[in-house]
Amino acid sequence: MTNPTVRITEVGPRDGLQNEKATISTDAKVAYVDRLSRSGCAEVEVTSFVSPKWVPQLADAAEVLARIARVPGVVYSALVPNEKGLDAALAARVDKVSVFTAASETFCRRNVNASIAETIERFRPVVARAKAARLAVRGYVSCAVACPFEGPIQPRAVADVSRALSDLGCDEIDLGDTIGVAAPADIDRLLDAHEGVVAPDRITMHLHDTRGTGLLCAWRSYERGIRSFDASCGGIGGCPYAPGASGNVATEELVYAFERSGIATGARVSALLEAAAGIAEALGRALPSKLAKAGLPRPSIDGSCQGT
Amino acid sequence: MTNPTVRITEVGPRDGLQNEKATISTDAKVAYVDRLSRSGCAEVEVTSFVSPKWVPQLADAAEVLARIARVPGVVYSALVPNEKGLDAALAARVDKVSVFTAASETFCRRNVNASIAETIERFRPVVARAKAARLAVRGYVSCAVACPFEGPIQPRAVADVSRALSDLGCDEIDLGDTIGVAAPADIDRLLDAHEGVVAPDRITMHLHDTRGTGLLCAWRSYERGIRSFDASCGGIGGCPYAPGASGNVATEELVYAFERSGIATGARVSALLEAAAGIAEALGRALPSKLAKAGLPRPSIDGSCQGT
Repeated sequence: MTNPTVRITEVGPRDGLQNEKATISTDAKVAYVDRLSRSGCAEVEVTSFVSPKWVPQLADAAEVLARIARVPGVVYSALVPNEKGLDAALAARVDKVSVFTAASETFCRRNVNASIAETIERFRPVVARAKAARLAVRGYVSCAVACPFEGPIQPRAVADVSRALSDLGCDEIDLGDTIGVAAPADIDRLLDAHEGVVAPDRITMHLHDTRGTGLLCAWRSYERGIRSFDASCGGIGGCPYAPGASGNVATEELVYAFERSGIATGARVSALLEAAAGIAEALGRALPSKLAKAGLPRPSIDGSCQGT
Repeated sequence: MTNPTVRITEVGPRDGLQNEKATISTDAKVAYVDRLSRSGCAEVEVTSFVSPKWVPQLADAAEVLARIARVPGVVYSALVPNEKGLDAALAARVDKVSVFTAASETFCRRNVNASIAETIERFRPVVARAKAARLAVRGYVSCAVACPFEGPIQPRAVADVSRALSDLGCDEIDLGDTIGVAAPADIDRLLDAHEGVVAPDRITMHLHDTRGTGLLCAWRSYERGIRSFDASCGGIGGCPYAPGASGNVATEELVYAFERSGIATGARVSALLEAAAGIAEALGRALPSKLAKAGLPRPSIDGSCQGT
């Protein structure tokens, strides 16, 4: 079977849960990841090895990775902040690790108490060792469009950080609209700035639906040649900088819109809706995803066209 | 001042309120329409003269129209189901009326107990008298993508109904994705079928965000030459065929995405957010709109980047 046109990374278990108020049980996380493993997504970002002091919700990282039922062909990844985190990720047999920095100096300093340049140096040995261990490596760039402290970020500044991560050895550069401000023109400017810096086939777009523009920006990115997207089923995650706001683009909405337009993603909406229902129950809250509320269109004699 | 590139019709007071469970007071409706009149939208669809037996929420149609503070340059319109409704609309001095049918025979019969052809004939004298009275006339086509009973609707069938409404004398054809199933490919097929039937500058797209694709489809429509869109601030309206589902595209989200991309809509997000807040209070419920929850991006020292 040929590879799908678009590659989806389910980041709900990491970016989603990391930004939710409720901490869910290890059992619930394992069940959640197992459902996602069967959804057809190319990759599941299972957890983070950032210190539980900062991200208590994911303190059970090693246990989750040990207990999930891995599906052959699915890439299982984890966020690592430093060499110690890499050690744990290697012990847990991840297929891939992600390192992370930001395009905003203020955000970087507030987030990890270091300048952007310092974070690049911190990750140098992490990336080198990961590559030597034959892991794939992703480099996240937060605030790729705007920063909650600095406001709009210059696309050229983002491209400079992308170049630095790429020079470090990252296979994939993940551009994150952390606070979900982007409109199509922002995507255009951002990707224009990356021409000649990182090829589109090495870029993943990580969009938030904070202001309802996530899916539109994913589509614009696709029109610009991007083929890899992060999303969270149910649209979980919220936004630490805008209480009550929505989170990541909902995986099922992205897959629905793309598949319905003939663009193969490899994923199945019904499986994603099941995973969304499961995590909604575990979190004890309704999810932002509109497709999760309405279901798939299913015509019926009485017009009650909800379905899965 | 030149006309904005894109024309927005605020349908919240009619399509939105018609599909909400709660009935709000006449005072609240007047306040709501007055806020919308100051938002910069080109048109406000104030109410409907469909019998209160069917739409009790809008039984105060004449009183609302009498009490609103009309802003010069804004078009005030109302839905009319027949000549009696037109009489009332004329007495209320609307600028424009809308007639309505569907591209699905089953939906049409369930909705108004008539075939599509019968509805066209019913509206013949309505449109003729409205044009004679120098009113603008819009013709709505529901189920332009899919029907809750029949499922997918052939684009050619939609174009046939559009042609019939156009031949009747309608100035503007409004294509409604009533149950919000569309992805960009559906928009392409629908507008392909309308080539040579109704010019793009006479088409208005009426999109629902039931499955999270509303704004994306509005953008696709714009890429295809459409310059007129319906929306409801806050995204009110729900879906009678999918309980709990979302409603119209949220006006503020559409305006935000377009304006941020350099496409002038004439409307102001902050004014729309005020109107959304007011109607949320009157309805006693949280609104689907993500932008309404998050606010406009407003960088700040403490990173609490919500704002209006």
